[in-house]
Amino acid sequence: MSKVITSRYQNYAQWYNDIVLKADLAENSAVRGCMVIKPYGYAIWEKMQAELDKMFKKTGHSNAYFPLFIPKSFFSKEASHVEGFAKECAVVTHYRLKNDPEGKGVIVDEDAKLEEELIVRPTSETIIWNTYKNWIQSYRDLPILINQWGNVVRWEMRTRLFLRTTEFLWQEGHTAHETKEEAIEETLKILDVYADFVENFMAVPVIKGEKTESERFAGAVQTYCIEALMQDGKALQSGTTHFLGQNFAKAFDVKFATKEGKQEYVWATSWGVSTRLMGALVMAHSDDKGLILPPKLAPDQVVIVPIYRSDEEYQKVCKSAEIIRNKLIDKNISVKLDARDTHKPGWKFAEYEMKGVPVRLALGPRDIENNTVEVVRRDTSEKETQSQEGIEERILLLLEEIQNNIYNKALKFRTEHTHKADTYDEFKDIINNGGGFVSAHWDGTIETENKIKNKTKATIRCIPNDVEKEEGKCMISGKPSYQRVLFAKAY
Amino acid sequence: MSKVITSRYQNYAQWYNDIVLKADLAENSAVRGCMVIKPYGYAIWEKMQAELDKMFKKTGHSNAYFPLFIPKSFFSKEASHVEGFAKECAVVTHYRLKNDPEGKGVIVDEDAKLEEELIVRPTSETIIWNTYKNWIQSYRDLPILINQWGNVVRWEMRTRLFLRTTEFLWQEGHTAHETKEEAIEETLKILDVYADFVENFMAVPVIKGEKTESERFAGAVQTYCIEALMQDGKALQSGTTHFLGQNFAKAFDVKFATKEGKQEYVWATSWGVSTRLMGALVMAHSDDKGLILPPKLAPDQVVIVPIYRSDEEYQKVCKSAEIIRNKLIDKNISVKLDARDTHKPGWKFAEYEMKGVPVRLALGPRDIENNTVEVVRRDTSEKETQSQEGIEERILLLLEEIQNNIYNKALKFRTEHTHKADTYDEFKDIINNGGGFVSAHWDGTIETENKIKNKTKATIRCIPNDVEKEEGKCMISGKPSYQRVLFAKAY
Repeated sequence: MSKVITSRYQNYAQWYNDIVLKADLAENSAVRGCMVIKPYGYAIWEKMQAELDKMFKKTGHSNAYFPLFIPKSFFSKEASHVEGFAKECAVVTHYRLKNDPEGKGVIVDEDAKLEEELIVRPTSETIIWNTYKNWIQSYRDLPILINQWGNVVRWEMRTRLFLRTTEFLWQEGHTAHETKEEAIEETLKILDVYADFVENFMAVPVIKGEKTESERFAGAVQTYCIEALMQDGKALQSGTTHFLGQNFAKAFDVKFATKEGKQEYVWATSWGVSTRLMGALVMAHSDDKGLILPPKLAPDQVVIVPIYRSDEEYQKVCKSAEIIRNKLIDKNISVKLDARDTHKPGWKFAEYEMKGVPVRLALGPRDIENNTVEVVRRDTSEKETQSQEGIEERILLLLEEIQNNIYNKALKFRTEHTHKADTYDEFKDIINNGGGFVSAHWDGTIETENKIKNKTKATIRCIPNDVEKEEGKCMISGKPSYQRVLFAKAY
Repeated sequence: MSKVITSRYQNYAQWYNDIVLKADLAENSAVRGCMVIKPYGYAIWEKMQAELDKMFKKTGHSNAYFPLFIPKSFFSKEASHVEGFAKECAVVTHYRLKNDPEGKGVIVDEDAKLEEELIVRPTSETIIWNTYKNWIQSYRDLPILINQWGNVVRWEMRTRLFLRTTEFLWQEGHTAHETKEEAIEETLKILDVYADFVENFMAVPVIKGEKTESERFAGAVQTYCIEALMQDGKALQSGTTHFLGQNFAKAFDVKFATKEGKQEYVWATSWGVSTRLMGALVMAHSDDKGLILPPKLAPDQVVIVPIYRSDEEYQKVCKSAEIIRNKLIDKNISVKLDARDTHKPGWKFAEYEMKGVPVRLALGPRDIENNTVEVVRRDTSEKETQSQEGIEERILLLLEEIQNNIYNKALKFRTEHTHKADTYDEFKDIINNGGGFVSAHWDGTIETENKIKNKTKATIRCIPNDVEKEEGKCMISGKPSYQRVLFAKAY
């Protein structure tokens, strides 16, 4: 009757995929590497979007929309951007189909070849800075604080639902500033916004830090990130913000007249989070029974399931269920009353467990007699019988409790899976046994980074913002180091 | 000082383009036919989206997301779809770039050629029905009521900002039903939603009706539309809903088991509105001073401009302005206080007039003395002096009044520009002198439709839903006709 999924212990990757499919979040499409986000998954993404959008607007940003296509030549304008950015992109070469003269459907019309190929945007720095050039003349035109919600395409060879797909949905912020300081401040401000969102809405603790050179965005001077830990001990980069210096301004010749009348290049940032966050959400909290959603992002925070045998019981129970539903709605709790008679209560229990609905209420004839209701929370499976009187207040508290509990659980897991390593043997031992974050000394060179990556698959996730200065020796080269950095295997 | 635009009388098309550019709504991008929607324009589109989305959800629809790309072969599956749909599409043929060996930027990697080309979706019926095939087994899986917000691409040769662009933003609903009746009901329900939105939020009156065969969507059995009249006497199709019969179900083999256990093809609808609505919004209301926005969709409903000479006056006036702003915010009025000292009041007046802000408040030292404020409404330019006491209530009423007034003005215009014609001479006379809607008898043949179109450029906009039966003769062929249809030149 219930949908069975692979356990985490058996096969973590399969467990993840099972949940995404069986909780109706997303599925693969007929187009290689592109997913279909199903209504239940999209409803969660919409809630994420709504909260993030509010936060962006509160910090002074506006939304706008730039073209899906970028002329091929734009990519070559910023040297490190073209050098570092993956070249796996969707390339549009023609603009017309025609009927196959042999009658076999449609074919590409070779007469309709573009003079210059267009690239489906993998990110929009180039087309946006080409546009900003016309928008910026003087310091009065600055800052420009713009965000875009949209789709981007990066031709991935190995894809996984939400975590790595050829097309994905995201937001990309692109800001322009008078000074270096202001741009760096923006980069860090948005990093705080991201951390705030992921911790307080997704209930996933994150570490804020800076990327090393080798993990930096192509074209950036500095890249900051938030890193979260998944239940398999692997890290997931959940958002990045980039201080772009004057690189794109120089590439697209964007200067402004300062208050003193001098011509200077504009300072830039860019930043983004994507539907990858959906993957983090699934992996951070869920268990072997299915998805576990934080109440603040759950499309349905409460589900009510009527229990009955006869038609008469059905009528009575549903009447009470509706009263409870309305009490909850009055408190702005999103609630689904599943009164379908085509499905048994047991089926419904399993279904909403799989879909991660935070609280399940069940209501039977005996509850009607006693004026009670059965309350089951998804995160702990704890069951209690509550009076229908004041149930709305109890549920409000319970939702808050669940939100806090799953955050604390994830935080505890991360704490237990964050270790210091002082020797390379210790390091390898941790990485190979349970994983997690490893805090270790590093000599600051790309060579050492690569050596560790090639041997252990662990990478430097970040140099944490709040890291303490501490003298030590690189665990590989023995050279001096002044702070620990954070390693992990990562998605 | 103020931005000057071409008058409607001088050159209507130029007037439209001037407003779109000078009110900062959108501009052309570096990619031919693709526009950049600027923050002010996007803020209006976001308000439209929010209202429509609420209406879709209220009528039981959920959002989801399907791939941007469609395999070329999918287009040939539904015969009339491939036959009728324009073949001007963006075609992706390669998935990788590489560095030019001659050092000139990047080139397309010819080794990375797709086996089957991918089309950037011009509309999503094919990919969605290919997906629905796996979602639908029995009547229990029906109806499916899904909407998608996204971007689509149709390679247009002659583009105009918002009205016809190669890439545009839209929503497309795709629903699946057990019965023909239910699908037709859905088609008409959404037509009502569209009409409700355009009339009550955009303040543009529309006529609901059915398209003739030649104007039908490729693959549809019936196409319904809402048609609005612009100030130059041309009609603008503002939304369409399609009853698709079982065409796509048959093309993609989507059957369901009925309650009785029989296998039947599923019934379908699709429907959409796009950023084209932004064009309708601009053209329906604006005047020679710039944009006029309906209060319900204006990003800023009120702007407050302080008037002052000295720094002391500036402080005083701004303090009062802030008090007024807060009173308005408390009433959920969106208000912008423009206290910048880098721009003169006269410049600001012209700017917000251009941007169509419904109400402008100006506040000077004398107003502070008298506890008054100057109120100017954008739609009529009427100016009045009001007490600051209770100003929030006055503004609330005024916003409602403006919303109604611009609707009524547009309705009056349409009424004055809707005529009956009983002879072809009458018909041509109206179409060539001021245009508008012409209600005339037609014999129901495509030949007659084409003849009229070729001679006068007027097309049948729709067979209105509420048309009265009336016996008459086709103005061209003299053959019998049982109702009038609505002609106009159109965008």
